[in-house]
Amino acid sequence: MRVAQIAPLAEAVPPKLYGGTERVIWWLTEALIDLGHDVTLFASGDSATSARLVPCAETGLRLAGINDHTASLIAMLDRVLSAADQFDILHFHIDFLHFPIFRHLAGKCLTTLHGRMDLPDFQPAFRPFREMRLVSISDDQRLPIADANFAGTVHHGLPAHLIPFDRAGGDYLAFIGRISPEKRPDRAIEIARRAGMKLKIAAKVDRADAVYFESEIKPLLGDPLIEFVGEIGDADKPAFLGQARALLFPIDWPEPFGLVMIEAMAAGTPVIAWRRGSTAEVIEPGRSGFLVDTVDEAVAAVEASGAIPRREVRAAFEARFTAERMARDYVRLYERLIGEETTALFGKRLAMAE
Amino acid sequence: MRVAQIAPLAEAVPPKLYGGTERVIWWLTEALIDLGHDVTLFASGDSATSARLVPCAETGLRLAGINDHTASLIAMLDRVLSAADQFDILHFHIDFLHFPIFRHLAGKCLTTLHGRMDLPDFQPAFRPFREMRLVSISDDQRLPIADANFAGTVHHGLPAHLIPFDRAGGDYLAFIGRISPEKRPDRAIEIARRAGMKLKIAAKVDRADAVYFESEIKPLLGDPLIEFVGEIGDADKPAFLGQARALLFPIDWPEPFGLVMIEAMAAGTPVIAWRRGSTAEVIEPGRSGFLVDTVDEAVAAVEASGAIPRREVRAAFEARFTAERMARDYVRLYERLIGEETTALFGKRLAMAE
Repeated sequence: MRVAQIAPLAEAVPPKLYGGTERVIWWLTEALIDLGHDVTLFASGDSATSARLVPCAETGLRLAGINDHTASLIAMLDRVLSAADQFDILHFHIDFLHFPIFRHLAGKCLTTLHGRMDLPDFQPAFRPFREMRLVSISDDQRLPIADANFAGTVHHGLPAHLIPFDRAGGDYLAFIGRISPEKRPDRAIEIARRAGMKLKIAAKVDRADAVYFESEIKPLLGDPLIEFVGEIGDADKPAFLGQARALLFPIDWPEPFGLVMIEAMAAGTPVIAWRRGSTAEVIEPGRSGFLVDTVDEAVAAVEASGAIPRREVRAAFEARFTAERMARDYVRLYERLIGEETTALFGKRLAMAE
Repeated sequence: MRVAQIAPLAEAVPPKLYGGTERVIWWLTEALIDLGHDVTLFASGDSATSARLVPCAETGLRLAGINDHTASLIAMLDRVLSAADQFDILHFHIDFLHFPIFRHLAGKCLTTLHGRMDLPDFQPAFRPFREMRLVSISDDQRLPIADANFAGTVHHGLPAHLIPFDRAGGDYLAFIGRISPEKRPDRAIEIARRAGMKLKIAAKVDRADAVYFESEIKPLLGDPLIEFVGEIGDADKPAFLGQARALLFPIDWPEPFGLVMIEAMAAGTPVIAWRRGSTAEVIEPGRSGFLVDTVDEAVAAVEASGAIPRREVRAAFEARFTAERMARDYVRLYERLIGEETTALFGKRLAMAE
């Protein structure tokens, strides 16, 4: 199948630093190629891919200091449009900016929504462009726009060997992510203190969250159980996650997917997550972690997590969250789309012949 | 002529508070109607206009707390597109988001650029969509994209009677705008102190500029010559500007137009401006104000400004910066566009007939 992947230009594919969306596009692209598909990637010029790369900005825009990405994106969409007849499928990862430009090609377009959909900002885009088919990254993500034109949910996946299984595990609780109110590092600290277990916090502090960090979190870091290790890179992640007893994911927002959960699971580390957003779709309670609603339940889950065989957590990852599984899910959607398109065309021809 | 004005949805037309672009669109729309044209305004639903209003969002998005305007804008553009054949001219005021959607109608599209064009962010939008004709609001504004497809420059104008002529004037210097480093309120303060003349600062402090205000400007406000009057509304502007000796406009950025200069001129108050961006196109030195490059020159200009007849400043405004003049300029561009389009169509038909 000839597939175009259209990435945001904010970060390279894969991203130099952060960028969950660009990372997923990278994994998906590589996995589609492994399955034998012919993939073209529209992305920033500093991307590194096995696909045919169409460079649509010199480098990722965020690190280049470009704040308004619209001009670069519409220039990219213009190139995609010129090349559209070379592809069976145009798979967009840039929210909805392309809707008005590609609606006449809706039959071969698929759009994965990567962000939260509960904000009123995005609602106006869906009704006028109903023919554009969407993919959610969790069923929960689509609730605020449940009547939009969803072709399916495809959970993210990561390469099976990216984060190796850590048989031994370790004795601390792990928290990883941004320091921000909706990630609730304060809850993670409370859980660790009440459970009497060490907590390592690997997190960056964005400028927007500096006040929150100083006023709410820093005062809690004096406890000898709490270790703030700061920002960690991709290279440090496997050890950080693999040597943990459990990952704490005490979120307070509708997380659309939550890659770090499956990264922990890949290492064999169970996840203790608040029942919000996608978590109930990712975690199998008792097998790969626990879903909780209160700090009390989370403390109990820390106790219980020691009894989960790490091998079982890894098996739960391998069964449901590899990049290969993600790619096969998307291929199924691509095929269905092409099938519908062919049927529609055939129907039209029949109608014209009559 | 049947004209569609397509406004940003950030603010109502006219805006409830700030919003230079929406204010100019309002004035232009009313002036076009006064000239006998049939105008339809695509704007937020809380707009107030003599034109036919097509409401494209319930209220202005900024005050509604909507941060990402893209979804609302593409939904609006979809409505404009559906109605496009009802108009002779589609006049866009939303930068370039519409370029890929309306390029097939480029012959009747005109786009006024309202912002600064010196940032790298916007450059990629112009080359791929060269057929889209642009209007700059000063000649200076287009320098960073000088080879883009400009149909002309149309300076802003305001209704002749909006800010009445104040024959008497007054004895203080006025500064009006945001408190921000590029507006250089610090320079205004230095000029006033060195000239030994009172300065009234009417300015809001955006959250982004809070640190600048606290650390750089607040310490300068102790001087008895300096009065910080805070934010003022439209109703207070005529008196604030009219009772001033001169307006200080000591900017340190490429101001694309600078409405406050012509507001002061309407009141008969001369303008002392740094030679940056549009100022040399707006101010006629010795007639409506002075252009300066240094604080020394500005101090000398404060002296000299007393000798400019306020009647002369008002005359300079009436000659070049009324909304009627702006509307007539745009009508001339509309007519040229339609003429070219007709010639092109006629050429095509001729070619087909041969």
